[in-house]
Amino acid sequence: MNKEIPYKIYLEESEMPRDWYNVRADMTKKPAPLLDPTTGKPITAEALGKVFCEELVKQELDDNNRYIPIPQEIIDFYKMYRPAPLVRAYCLEKKLGTPAHIYYKFEGNNTSGSHKLNSAIAQAYYAKQQGLKGVTTETGAGQWGTALSMACSYFDLDCKVFMVKCSYEQKPFRREVMRTYGADVTPSPSTTTAVGRQILAEFPGTSGSLGCAISEAVEAATSREGYRYVLGSVLSQVMLHQSVIGMETKAALDKYGVKADIVIGCAGGGSNLGGLIAPFMGEKLRGEADYHFIAVEPASCPSLTRGKYVYDYCDTGRVCPLAKMYTLGSAFIPAATHAGGLRYHGMSSTLSELYDQGLMEARSVKQTEVFAAAEYFARIEGILPAPESSHAIKVAIDEAIKCRETGESKNIVFGLTGTGYFDMMSYEKFHDGRMTDYEPTDEELAKGLSKLPKV
Amino acid sequence: MNKEIPYKIYLEESEMPRDWYNVRADMTKKPAPLLDPTTGKPITAEALGKVFCEELVKQELDDNNRYIPIPQEIIDFYKMYRPAPLVRAYCLEKKLGTPAHIYYKFEGNNTSGSHKLNSAIAQAYYAKQQGLKGVTTETGAGQWGTALSMACSYFDLDCKVFMVKCSYEQKPFRREVMRTYGADVTPSPSTTTAVGRQILAEFPGTSGSLGCAISEAVEAATSREGYRYVLGSVLSQVMLHQSVIGMETKAALDKYGVKADIVIGCAGGGSNLGGLIAPFMGEKLRGEADYHFIAVEPASCPSLTRGKYVYDYCDTGRVCPLAKMYTLGSAFIPAATHAGGLRYHGMSSTLSELYDQGLMEARSVKQTEVFAAAEYFARIEGILPAPESSHAIKVAIDEAIKCRETGESKNIVFGLTGTGYFDMMSYEKFHDGRMTDYEPTDEELAKGLSKLPKV
Repeated sequence: MNKEIPYKIYLEESEMPRDWYNVRADMTKKPAPLLDPTTGKPITAEALGKVFCEELVKQELDDNNRYIPIPQEIIDFYKMYRPAPLVRAYCLEKKLGTPAHIYYKFEGNNTSGSHKLNSAIAQAYYAKQQGLKGVTTETGAGQWGTALSMACSYFDLDCKVFMVKCSYEQKPFRREVMRTYGADVTPSPSTTTAVGRQILAEFPGTSGSLGCAISEAVEAATSREGYRYVLGSVLSQVMLHQSVIGMETKAALDKYGVKADIVIGCAGGGSNLGGLIAPFMGEKLRGEADYHFIAVEPASCPSLTRGKYVYDYCDTGRVCPLAKMYTLGSAFIPAATHAGGLRYHGMSSTLSELYDQGLMEARSVKQTEVFAAAEYFARIEGILPAPESSHAIKVAIDEAIKCRETGESKNIVFGLTGTGYFDMMSYEKFHDGRMTDYEPTDEELAKGLSKLPKV
Repeated sequence: MNKEIPYKIYLEESEMPRDWYNVRADMTKKPAPLLDPTTGKPITAEALGKVFCEELVKQELDDNNRYIPIPQEIIDFYKMYRPAPLVRAYCLEKKLGTPAHIYYKFEGNNTSGSHKLNSAIAQAYYAKQQGLKGVTTETGAGQWGTALSMACSYFDLDCKVFMVKCSYEQKPFRREVMRTYGADVTPSPSTTTAVGRQILAEFPGTSGSLGCAISEAVEAATSREGYRYVLGSVLSQVMLHQSVIGMETKAALDKYGVKADIVIGCAGGGSNLGGLIAPFMGEKLRGEADYHFIAVEPASCPSLTRGKYVYDYCDTGRVCPLAKMYTLGSAFIPAATHAGGLRYHGMSSTLSELYDQGLMEARSVKQTEVFAAAEYFARIEGILPAPESSHAIKVAIDEAIKCRETGESKNIVFGLTGTGYFDMMSYEKFHDGRMTDYEPTDEELAKGLSKLPKV
């Protein structure tokens, strides 16, 4: 039977995964391929290689290899902040009076404050291997930018970050963390790129979006010798690197003989959710076990629950390959809500396909209820969660309350992707009763979807 | 021989200390007793009980019991964020090219961002046991205030925090974290207390100090029914609770057969240093082993290196008991430097006595060199350190460089007390070259010491 479960399950370093798990290998119907926007045909490795690092392009296009060995240098870096703890939320269970067992995989114990470092270090490693001078990227909440700055500093690479303007303004100290790690940070949209100037002309006074910032970062990379663009979410390679979250989670649960019933993750572009559920989804795809997966997205940016499953541009400036995904349209600019990391118009192709196949559920939640859940959780479990992560907390609590009503002792696992230390301006708004909820109207959604690519 | 040492040594929850260790029990010459400012005689438990919780008064006055059992409720809370990792700084060693082995005990993996939670939860527990309504306190860098807010929220106690004004202004989001945990935060000196008004009249425009904030918090507690005052440093009870740091550190080293040679901690009031070195100092006092201890303090507030070992007031308003300690005088108001947690005019009586007996070394370091060490460390080891903690980093690096020169493979252990997420304004100043160093002149020191109590 089950051993006594500690508050925090830490794997030994020797128990850490040696491989990333590629869920696409177990999908019978694969995610739709990326298309070249100029030809409308599946994009070639050569074309992708102009934007992305070579080895990462290989990973991006690899639908078949189930396991990809993690290079030793990356394992060594992982050891500086991993394995991440899987926490049994004893205090939360007690407070809720639920028979459910709640576990969360806490990815916030590193300076980037989130899981983003898992992919940042991998991408920086491959860039270094290729002999590049530096990389460019975008960041929303600032966690990816911080993670990439840390990774680039470790491998002595130049790092240029385009930060979504509303986050840049809400989080004045995020920039300074990135500077501490030697990065160069520009609020987006900016006048430093042609696409930034074009977006500013079309939407004067815009607070930006991940879609805009991506366009700028891509331009900055492709217009410089020795640079490539790297991305912290959406792409299959990111999902691959983030599988380390799920692999560790599963190993920790297996060690104590616990079978998850529900696995919950917040979903913006899909990096955390995809990584967390990967090995569990693999078992479900192979018919070895069943799990109930729940993707939680903000009501203000509801790509899975209210978007359309079509080919779309990945960025506002339409310079990237086209991806088939649940999308609100690249013309959709989400409201300046307080979960900057979830303000992306689309969703990872892999997750979109899994969702379309009915293999997971999606829910949207409002930001005031998310912050209420965040504060409730902080007071009980101690950890001050990021607004993004708190989407998952909200639904985990909902499910635990359902168990209280039905008397079921389900094992609920959720991803606590990061900490909210740089989100105190948002918490302040919540405390002062100045936070509002926003949901796009049907007209706004229709407008966002009005400029889909013709394929 | 030594087993292979992981990057992070995590003890099992079952290996966590069940007792706090009271170093005073092993001191032949005990620290000088606290004196009642009205009588000039050793203070009684009854008099102390008007300000502090009963059980904490017992601990404060206990020079004899070597081990004090940790109540189960506190152990349960500790399990939410402890054991803290002891990290082998492989990357730093490599970068420095030193044969030294560097270890740091990292106490920053909790929302208070520091080791302060170790004592906050103990003090809140005893306040709750006594049936109090709430507690008051002061906070410098904001870490203690945050820790106490978390602890009070857990035990459903009211929490009133007086925050040193310069920190309140430098760290606008700290207040919001405390509010998230339900605390009430006032910048100090304030007009809400008689002593605050008096200090403001004497020093208009002062940016405050821990000494001022203590006076205000004591007044706020003693003028209210059902409240007591709690303190995050200096006191022997705090040193006792913080011994959990040293106990875990020693257990982790013992597990791998490693004997520390040098143990380094930053020193403000002494809470971290005293806790970290406690069990090692115990062995030294009992003649079982020898260690080289180094207390590191800011050059701007050099109580050990430039202060006097005399009885002094613990607070600027002179409402607290008198303590014999290395002090710059309660009239000394330190410059508004960026290590708010180290801006206290005195040093724990226990540490002062140990220092006076020649059992440890003290060094002072300048803040620009501290921030240079902080940034260097962040880029190599990933963790963004608090300015306070970075004092220890600076000296650990100095010692590791000495080993490179002599070829010695010493085991250097230092306390990394916390993270710098709320110190980005200070880092910004450093990056922009706007940070200056400050050392008090001999005249300023003489002025600070001009108002010592007559005992």
